Amino acid sequence: MAVSKLEKLANALKSKVPEGRINFTVPDIWNAWDYQGPEMRRLPSEELLVNPYSFYSSLINACFLVKKDPQIDYQKPLSKINNEKITSKGGDWLHRASLYSMMPRASAAWDHDRSHSLDLDNLDHLKETGTFVKALALLPFLDKLGINTIYLLPLTRYSETNKKGELGSPYAVSSSTELDPNLKDDLCLDMLTLEEEFQAFVEACHLMQMRVTIDIMPRTIARDNTLIKDHPDWFYWIKVHDFDQYQVPRVEGLPNTLPPNPEHMEKVYASPSVKKHLALFQQDPKTTNESLWAKLLEDNPDNLQEAIKEHYGLMVAPAFSDHINDIQPPWSDITFLRFYFDHPTANRSFLENPDTPPYILFDTIKANLYPGEKPNRELWDLLSGIIPKFQKKYGIDGARIDMGHALPKALLENIMASARNVDHDFGFIAEELNPANAKTAKELGYNILVGNSFWMEPRVKEGYLREFINRATESELPMYACSETHDSARIANRNGGLLLSRMLTVVNMLLPNRIPFINSGQEFYETQPMNIGVDCTIDDRYSLPETDLFYGKLALFDKYAFHYLHPQRWELADLLQGIIKIRKQWLPQLLDKEASLVLSFWEESCAIAFGYYNKDNGDILIVAMNPDFENDIQVGGSISRLRELAKNHNTKGKLLYSTYEFGGDFHGLSLDTINLHLQKCEVKIITF
Amino acid sequence: MAVSKLEKLANALKSKVPEGRINFTVPDIWNAWDYQGPEMRRLPSEELLVNPYSFYSSLINACFLVKKDPQIDYQKPLSKINNEKITSKGGDWLHRASLYSMMPRASAAWDHDRSHSLDLDNLDHLKETGTFVKALALLPFLDKLGINTIYLLPLTRYSETNKKGELGSPYAVSSSTELDPNLKDDLCLDMLTLEEEFQAFVEACHLMQMRVTIDIMPRTIARDNTLIKDHPDWFYWIKVHDFDQYQVPRVEGLPNTLPPNPEHMEKVYASPSVKKHLALFQQDPKTTNESLWAKLLEDNPDNLQEAIKEHYGLMVAPAFSDHINDIQPPWSDITFLRFYFDHPTANRSFLENPDTPPYILFDTIKANLYPGEKPNRELWDLLSGIIPKFQKKYGIDGARIDMGHALPKALLENIMASARNVDHDFGFIAEELNPANAKTAKELGYNILVGNSFWMEPRVKEGYLREFINRATESELPMYACSETHDSARIANRNGGLLLSRMLTVVNMLLPNRIPFINSGQEFYETQPMNIGVDCTIDDRYSLPETDLFYGKLALFDKYAFHYLHPQRWELADLLQGIIKIRKQWLPQLLDKEASLVLSFWEESCAIAFGYYNKDNGDILIVAMNPDFENDIQVGGSISRLRELAKNHNTKGKLLYSTYEFGGDFHGLSLDTINLHLQKCEVKIITF
Repeated sequence: MAVSKLEKLANALKSKVPEGRINFTVPDIWNAWDYQGPEMRRLPSEELLVNPYSFYSSLINACFLVKKDPQIDYQKPLSKINNEKITSKGGDWLHRASLYSMMPRASAAWDHDRSHSLDLDNLDHLKETGTFVKALALLPFLDKLGINTIYLLPLTRYSETNKKGELGSPYAVSSSTELDPNLKDDLCLDMLTLEEEFQAFVEACHLMQMRVTIDIMPRTIARDNTLIKDHPDWFYWIKVHDFDQYQVPRVEGLPNTLPPNPEHMEKVYASPSVKKHLALFQQDPKTTNESLWAKLLEDNPDNLQEAIKEHYGLMVAPAFSDHINDIQPPWSDITFLRFYFDHPTANRSFLENPDTPPYILFDTIKANLYPGEKPNRELWDLLSGIIPKFQKKYGIDGARIDMGHALPKALLENIMASARNVDHDFGFIAEELNPANAKTAKELGYNILVGNSFWMEPRVKEGYLREFINRATESELPMYACSETHDSARIANRNGGLLLSRMLTVVNMLLPNRIPFINSGQEFYETQPMNIGVDCTIDDRYSLPETDLFYGKLALFDKYAFHYLHPQRWELADLLQGIIKIRKQWLPQLLDKEASLVLSFWEESCAIAFGYYNKDNGDILIVAMNPDFENDIQVGGSISRLRELAKNHNTKGKLLYSTYEFGGDFHGLSLDTINLHLQKCEVKIITF
Repeated sequence: MAVSKLEKLANALKSKVPEGRINFTVPDIWNAWDYQGPEMRRLPSEELLVNPYSFYSSLINACFLVKKDPQIDYQKPLSKINNEKITSKGGDWLHRASLYSMMPRASAAWDHDRSHSLDLDNLDHLKETGTFVKALALLPFLDKLGINTIYLLPLTRYSETNKKGELGSPYAVSSSTELDPNLKDDLCLDMLTLEEEFQAFVEACHLMQMRVTIDIMPRTIARDNTLIKDHPDWFYWIKVHDFDQYQVPRVEGLPNTLPPNPEHMEKVYASPSVKKHLALFQQDPKTTNESLWAKLLEDNPDNLQEAIKEHYGLMVAPAFSDHINDIQPPWSDITFLRFYFDHPTANRSFLENPDTPPYILFDTIKANLYPGEKPNRELWDLLSGIIPKFQKKYGIDGARIDMGHALPKALLENIMASARNVDHDFGFIAEELNPANAKTAKELGYNILVGNSFWMEPRVKEGYLREFINRATESELPMYACSETHDSARIANRNGGLLLSRMLTVVNMLLPNRIPFINSGQEFYETQPMNIGVDCTIDDRYSLPETDLFYGKLALFDKYAFHYLHPQRWELADLLQGIIKIRKQWLPQLLDKEASLVLSFWEESCAIAFGYYNKDNGDILIVAMNPDFENDIQVGGSISRLRELAKNHNTKGKLLYSTYEFGGDFHGLSLDTINLHLQKCEVKIITF
């Protein structure tokens, strides 16, 4: 069996304890495991001043290694570690998942030296942006929240050439398998490799009975990436001096943000703006001049991109949205990979010139709808090999495929088959926002989908939260129950703020056919979005006080640490602690579409309620919430149908849970109805 | 000429700049000189994060060395540096002084590493209690306050054996001339000696045209001190096993805190409590057994005190107040020196046993009133040599003599003569609280006296502030105008708090025949007393929030840093800036008892006002204040007498200054009267 990298890490850290009398603070949330080092001091800021070597080596021993069975290799997927029986085509453990979306660079960042600057090399020569090692301290806190699956935002090396913000986006992948060197910790600088540190992280998660899923981006890649050298023809090219004119073409007569469906394509190709756009594209440098290319490679320039610019006047074209007339500007840091060597078969006839060089358009980048006839097999194989590399090296348990639905179907199938060939129980999350596509996603082999809850849930007054809950059991695949993502506005920064955030975070743990999903920072009411990609405005971006170190900063691009010292930072952890037991007990009903019922008559008030019944013993669980963040309400309604289904006639009820008060008998029950008082954004859970 | 220690210090600090990328913060008040180092960062706490080597070497260059005349030795007294004409018997520059009472250990202390603990060896192995080097950064701020004389609390090595608090009191002198090693800075640890650092400090003060006065304690000394070895007979001894019974004797039939005047002494000696007390005293160990003493010294024990305890069962007796029935407990850390080898001549007859061993009683420790016949000449010479040592080595300008009035007159004269022999313009401050003794003090050679303003000024409602001002010109010697001292409650912690503190600190700068005196911390509204010695209660001691790092701590005994981050920390500096020019212009009148007049008719309201007139040009200056911290007032009264004296008939007045508003014409003047509106605790200065 391989040497445990977590043990190696613990030993490395321990050996440095004598060097650890330094100015290193962590937020107290990182000590949900109750470290009691004699050197620790709680500062007035509520930060903890610790010896980091002592803190982290103690963490690893006290929280992870203590659970280790020496016979088990924790670098394997959790299904194998637990020797789980696998039903279905695999990955359906995702149905029982509670997901936490973590971006280690930001989630585990802290201004450790309190210099009011998040430094890559702080006063003690330590890294203040997040690392895998530092992220270990979050796991005990996440465990308190009931999290059992860590969803990691991209971890791989990203481009710093056309980077956005201070650091660049991890979505601007410059290597699909090499880890982002920024995630290497300085605490044990030369004692472990970055790869070993991620291995240790996955090991620790598995020891906590948490699964690890990653995010892979097969469709897009940074404009400067290592593939160009060997495969210039896998990319789209334009002239450097045309770059200024490179825009998202605007198709006259069509509305904004329209899916590129076949019925629109003739109009698209006929548009003067598109024609002008297509004229910008050039053959790749190798095709343009093969001998020059050979020489150029032989010269082995430091910066291939610059050399191409200089010798060819060519550059890789930036990507943009695949929706017609999307208002987003081009995505300057990334480009698309060519899945086919020819133009889309279906639209070829619309081209004035069939010899038009490869071009980026709504169809070429939506290869699932618009395949060509000459697939780029080598690329497909390469993409299908990414996940297996991560599986074999780190033992990850699942992946979200970024824009998977835009890939050629055969490629997607290949990616999934390759992964499940390594681990039959590998889980797949579809980055599919449209619930109507759940059935297709299921057929493709996905286990769950992202869905649209991040948009529906916050829109309480418009009735979308109610609709989201009402339609929960309709979906062919379970989808996220979340109120924010790394792309959206923060729920704590929306109308209703902290109160609504609290209600939704709690109730998401108990929705039927939904997967609780917490976006890093949400659990302590972070208000600053990580990106302003989707459903997020410029006002959201600038909502922090101007004096805040992270005013206007976005975690996806900038050096960013969350506001871990929020005065109510422990509140949701406390509230979710109470939910864990209920969720565990009622999980079979949460997963069983037949075992729940929305109490739809409640629509007369703004309150929303739904019930579960246990077919075996007739127990009923009612979850009721008041999404109104301004008024308390008194509500009531019929529960006859639920009683009928459960064959339950109990009139003695129990208040199992409330976001405001604790336990006790519940007196609002009759044989027909339930009546209860709900405070602002209160969640009440009653059983009988 | 001697090498400038300040230059040596600057060079030493500069050489360490490359090591200064550490976590070192200072309060921004320490940067009143506008350091702009590129590494400096203002933290949200309003502290400045700096490279300390860069910060301090820049300070020395920018604020002090830049003013240096290479021909001048700044290690001489300022009178010599400035080549001042000396009138009178010398030291009368004190009449023009604005004093700042500094206790370097506390005044220059800071939790530099922000570990929420004031450490002697912080995370960067630096000292967080104050040092001479760190105190340099206070000088530019003090300059803004108009300070021209630094009065330093005791600087010499103190005892740590019977110490009070965390560090012990600097008043428990264990060596009269050796500097307190705690004041050595770690920034240039082995590059300068402690003595050189103090030399540098005095040099810097002189370059700022500030004088330096120190505090010397000829009467008391730490119970463990180096003199015992050679002079056991200079001390008072009791048996170790009697220590529990050692108390201040209580004389029945006499009131509390009574001066030990001759008329009481018979009663004192007749008291059973005193008899019991006298019976505790023993002959010194040498006298008790000379051969044992010789052997003991030959054995040269590490701890002589312990050896004496072991072999003789003897210990040095603690000191106590010289007032009969004072309620203060014994001063456990110090003892008295024997000025005479025999008992007080005047009271000898009251002794039942003339062979009573030397004893501490209200008379033996009040040698000015109760001399003996056999003076301890060797001790007198030693004490007279203390100040000259400081003068020759450091170039200090003056001294306060602690309890000087309790010394034998001849000793005091000797002390003064020795100092003025070295520097004819050496200044002496009498620790005389009773204004009635001003004349005596003047005759003895003192230049100014402490007086009782610290007690009078805060008692506004009781009328003592008014009385203090009304009687200002009565005093034969100028005395302090202050509202607090290191022994008293803080003015900002009294009724009226910040408002009253502001008014008094401002107005003290302009009182006739008074010497402005600011107690370290007062200038930014520190509320915690440094000691609870005089006019200070246990409630004052515990008035900080319990979460405050210095809750209950006293600067005189504990590790203490002032609250330099007070939100209004710059206010008094700004207000005093406006006074400097007025004080400078009117200084001749401030010093001339004939040139001022209290506007006594103002007694009808609570307002107080006084005026100055310039005999040469007839200008009048009126200073008016409203000591009421709750109500604004409208006041007015006659100025006829002032006009008459000044021969001034101007009706166009000018508002020269206010603690609330700025400048402009003043319209409240008529030929007979002045009328003005005063806000709460406002000071208004009008000229015409």
